[in-house]
Amino acid sequence: MRIARFSIDGNVAFGVVEGDPAQPESLVIDIIKGIPFAEFERSGTKVPLDKVRLLPPVLPSKVVAIGRNYAEHAAELGNEVPPAPFAFFKPSTSVVGPGDPVPYPTFSRELHHEAELAVVIGRMCREVPLDRAHEVILGYTCANDLTARDVQRTEKQWARAKGFDAACPLGPWVETGIDPKTAADLAITCTVNGELRQAGRTSQMIHGIAELIVNLTEAMTLLPGDVVLTGTPAGVGPLNVGDEVAVTIEGIGTLANKVIKRG
Amino acid sequence: MRIARFSIDGNVAFGVVEGDPAQPESLVIDIIKGIPFAEFERSGTKVPLDKVRLLPPVLPSKVVAIGRNYAEHAAELGNEVPPAPFAFFKPSTSVVGPGDPVPYPTFSRELHHEAELAVVIGRMCREVPLDRAHEVILGYTCANDLTARDVQRTEKQWARAKGFDAACPLGPWVETGIDPKTAADLAITCTVNGELRQAGRTSQMIHGIAELIVNLTEAMTLLPGDVVLTGTPAGVGPLNVGDEVAVTIEGIGTLANKVIKRG
Repeated sequence: MRIARFSIDGNVAFGVVEGDPAQPESLVIDIIKGIPFAEFERSGTKVPLDKVRLLPPVLPSKVVAIGRNYAEHAAELGNEVPPAPFAFFKPSTSVVGPGDPVPYPTFSRELHHEAELAVVIGRMCREVPLDRAHEVILGYTCANDLTARDVQRTEKQWARAKGFDAACPLGPWVETGIDPKTAADLAITCTVNGELRQAGRTSQMIHGIAELIVNLTEAMTLLPGDVVLTGTPAGVGPLNVGDEVAVTIEGIGTLANKVIKRG
Repeated sequence: MRIARFSIDGNVAFGVVEGDPAQPESLVIDIIKGIPFAEFERSGTKVPLDKVRLLPPVLPSKVVAIGRNYAEHAAELGNEVPPAPFAFFKPSTSVVGPGDPVPYPTFSRELHHEAELAVVIGRMCREVPLDRAHEVILGYTCANDLTARDVQRTEKQWARAKGFDAACPLGPWVETGIDPKTAADLAITCTVNGELRQAGRTSQMIHGIAELIVNLTEAMTLLPGDVVLTGTPAGVGPLNVGDEVAVTIEGIGTLANKVIKRG
């Protein structure tokens, strides 16, 4: 099931996207009663997808991202693969939705794309055992872990380099129908103006999704709607004002955003 | 003015603390109508302070903390003073209030205290100019930037080392009556079981409060209730189960928390 968050006529709601993604004009949203983190019903009220504005599919209290979780990406930036996962935060103020513009950060001259599989947490959890990690997952969406690469090189911690406004596009929706085995081998691509820049598979992750959830919840509580970014495959590179960057993940969809000049 | 957030009989409210801190039994809270981020009135309904449970004085969407902002502290851990400020996040799930227990993190064997002046943001802001930084500050409180020092050494980014549950005690209240010049030279101390461990002055900060706000808001929007931790003076050291750690800042008050075994 594809769960989207959207606005129409100033109202915000969650809904289930129905129809064939290969025929965009066939897509409709069935508005749901309640929130997707609990049992909910479809209202039966359907709106054409092209009549709504899609929003970030969740409002995370925090986004926790994993660094260097694909060996080829670590190598391309001259880094070694870390012996254990390490994590950093992207704040709620960095989250934008599908189609939202990304203003080029004024304190950087080297904005980079990083296409990533995003895990959306479905329930409050802490100290999750490995064999139950899948139970805390609501579903999956696409993320772009936008990075001010020059600032990342000069500042020891990455709050500014990876936490600036609009540094975390998420979307287009949360796909809840992917089982853990399938999630462990999905194709991820990133294009810039239609040109392929990143192409990898989630099977190339050094630390798998369940292992990351164990690692993080050993330390901290994850809340419904929190998001775990699982690392980016090789091929990261620069974005310029005017570029359209698109992250596509097999079985989920495409998250596209345009880089604009900050006004 | 001292603005506290508290619960009584299951209700949560903000209030103004009145009375002489030297005579704790004289302290009362005048419940306010509305929230402290806008014009508000005192209700005139007063409750003795010892009848309420103080909560974290704000609910930050994010806590942004500055690393190595006191030269002697950088030196005591064998680090150089960075040429520019660098920042990291502590998530909302790490925030606890005055008197709240701090469960010793199970993934660490080296929990350290770090007493810090916390700046509470009063209004949504971005790209704040240096000479207007004081306008976005609601007031100041005490913070303890609790750190799993062993994990900090082994993990390149500090999400787990400084973002675990209860890693960010804040309180006891927000003091709004300190002017920028005074805030720039306040005594900070940290005691463990009554024994002095850290003693510094905010005048020893390498980057001052206004400069930090400029640096952060160059990248990201700060929201009302967000908190900026301004770095810790020298003297950081270990905490053990059973220890009572207290951060005291001149003109603000004392934030005390007990370390307990995680149940």
